[in-house]
Amino acid sequence: MPILTALLLAAAPPPATPKIRSPGDAVKAARAADWAEIPADELMVMDLANGKRVVIQLAPIFAPVHVANLKIMARAGYWGRATVYRVVDNWVTQWGLGDGPFKSPPGVIDRPPEEYQRSARGLTLTPMGSPDPYSSMAAYTEGWPVAKQPGGIVNAAYCYGTVGVARDAAPDTGNGSELFTVIGATARRLDRNYALVGRVIEGMEYLSALPRGTADMGVYAKDQSPLAITSVRIAADMPAGQRPRFEYLKSGSPAFADYVQLASHRRDYGVPSPGADLCAVPVPVRKVGVKS
Amino acid sequence: MPILTALLLAAAPPPATPKIRSPGDAVKAARAADWAEIPADELMVMDLANGKRVVIQLAPIFAPVHVANLKIMARAGYWGRATVYRVVDNWVTQWGLGDGPFKSPPGVIDRPPEEYQRSARGLTLTPMGSPDPYSSMAAYTEGWPVAKQPGGIVNAAYCYGTVGVARDAAPDTGNGSELFTVIGATARRLDRNYALVGRVIEGMEYLSALPRGTADMGVYAKDQSPLAITSVRIAADMPAGQRPRFEYLKSGSPAFADYVQLASHRRDYGVPSPGADLCAVPVPVRKVGVKS
Repeated sequence: MPILTALLLAAAPPPATPKIRSPGDAVKAARAADWAEIPADELMVMDLANGKRVVIQLAPIFAPVHVANLKIMARAGYWGRATVYRVVDNWVTQWGLGDGPFKSPPGVIDRPPEEYQRSARGLTLTPMGSPDPYSSMAAYTEGWPVAKQPGGIVNAAYCYGTVGVARDAAPDTGNGSELFTVIGATARRLDRNYALVGRVIEGMEYLSALPRGTADMGVYAKDQSPLAITSVRIAADMPAGQRPRFEYLKSGSPAFADYVQLASHRRDYGVPSPGADLCAVPVPVRKVGVKS
Repeated sequence: MPILTALLLAAAPPPATPKIRSPGDAVKAARAADWAEIPADELMVMDLANGKRVVIQLAPIFAPVHVANLKIMARAGYWGRATVYRVVDNWVTQWGLGDGPFKSPPGVIDRPPEEYQRSARGLTLTPMGSPDPYSSMAAYTEGWPVAKQPGGIVNAAYCYGTVGVARDAAPDTGNGSELFTVIGATARRLDRNYALVGRVIEGMEYLSALPRGTADMGVYAKDQSPLAITSVRIAADMPAGQRPRFEYLKSGSPAFADYVQLASHRRDYGVPSPGADLCAVPVPVRKVGVKS
């Protein structure tokens, strides 16, 4: 039988070599309707003293009270004297007022609920398809990577660039005034323990490539200079012509399914893997033209 | 029955609150015999023009021909004009001679075998215990994180700090003269496609915190300065008193099993996860005193 099959195949014209498609090919092929714009009041724009800009997509779907706090703080100019003051290799970069406490602006809830996880009710989950050591199912919803836990509970996943709320040991001690982003490989143990308020979608390299802190816990030592933050704004409050705008690929679209499939088994790299980490298959985000 | 049990429990003295042990506690409790010294001829010491030092543990167990090449190159002073010239955020930092080709020193095999994977025969695998989307079993052997594939094949895993061989698209085009290390979150798709020659065990921050390259593919642009490498030596060739020395926790030791268990379900962080990424549970390595 193998010989016969070989002969039959040889008798047919050789097939054209199929192009090996990359995840980027799937993203490029997405239609305009497959993309959703991130609302301007869910974009936080952080300008640094070195002239660089970091844009953070906020996650009210997971941490509504914390995100409301962040907006109040931004609008009150609360971070006017804030700095990036802690950088730990393969772990996090952290910023805020640091040596506070300062009095929170009116309206801030200083002891918000934990908000590490939420009910899956009302969410449409698109399964990712690979086994996830941190949950019973890796999935996507509303443009975010999530993990489904037993009991109908869902938490957002801590991947590279995720923004979380720094706090003391007690779970309710972080109001959002001190934030961190993941600059390392493996932070998923934070999923069910630290409130996740967003992710960096532009300028990540201005937080990840900073010198590592040499004092305790990776805080900058006396001979290191914290990086000053010059302003933190919500994009909706900026003049329309200056607002940065971004879109994400909708989890339910055919292009997204195609992307996840290709990104989970990278044939374009050679031997494909049976699956992939949830964080290795991030939701595609793209910048759109500045509003005219 | 529940009521009776409760009464019985209440009648007994309250148990002492158990201390929540961290993975570090398991490492601290390891006996001297649980540690193995890395041979001095498997340590590559790379000194940078800014005075910083990077130490790489070599992996002859996985890529013997490539590692032999690296030793010949180091001993021949081949990297005398090499630089760190490419840095891609959330991906890799790369170094070497870059704009070669230069003639390889005598003894270098310019087209080594692929060496991306090897037979599991002769290896003792210590299972890691969590599901791995990239293989049929995550495990450890001889101090390295590995993935078992169907058919008795094992490959070393590309985690943060792993050192691999840069190459063109053809699988046999890298002899080791250009190397990269993983500075990002998710590089496991390289496991079965790029030769793995080692891992950074000291000075990783001097490669991960460099400015990202702004030219094509993250190469440094004309207005950026590549970081010069002043010397690359094998520790065994250094004067005994100057050799850096390191030990790793043996995979088969009880302390290692305890460590893996604690690191896979971080109760010290709060709610433990059902498992963990292989790369989230790295083999503990420690520096030992400079030889007198």
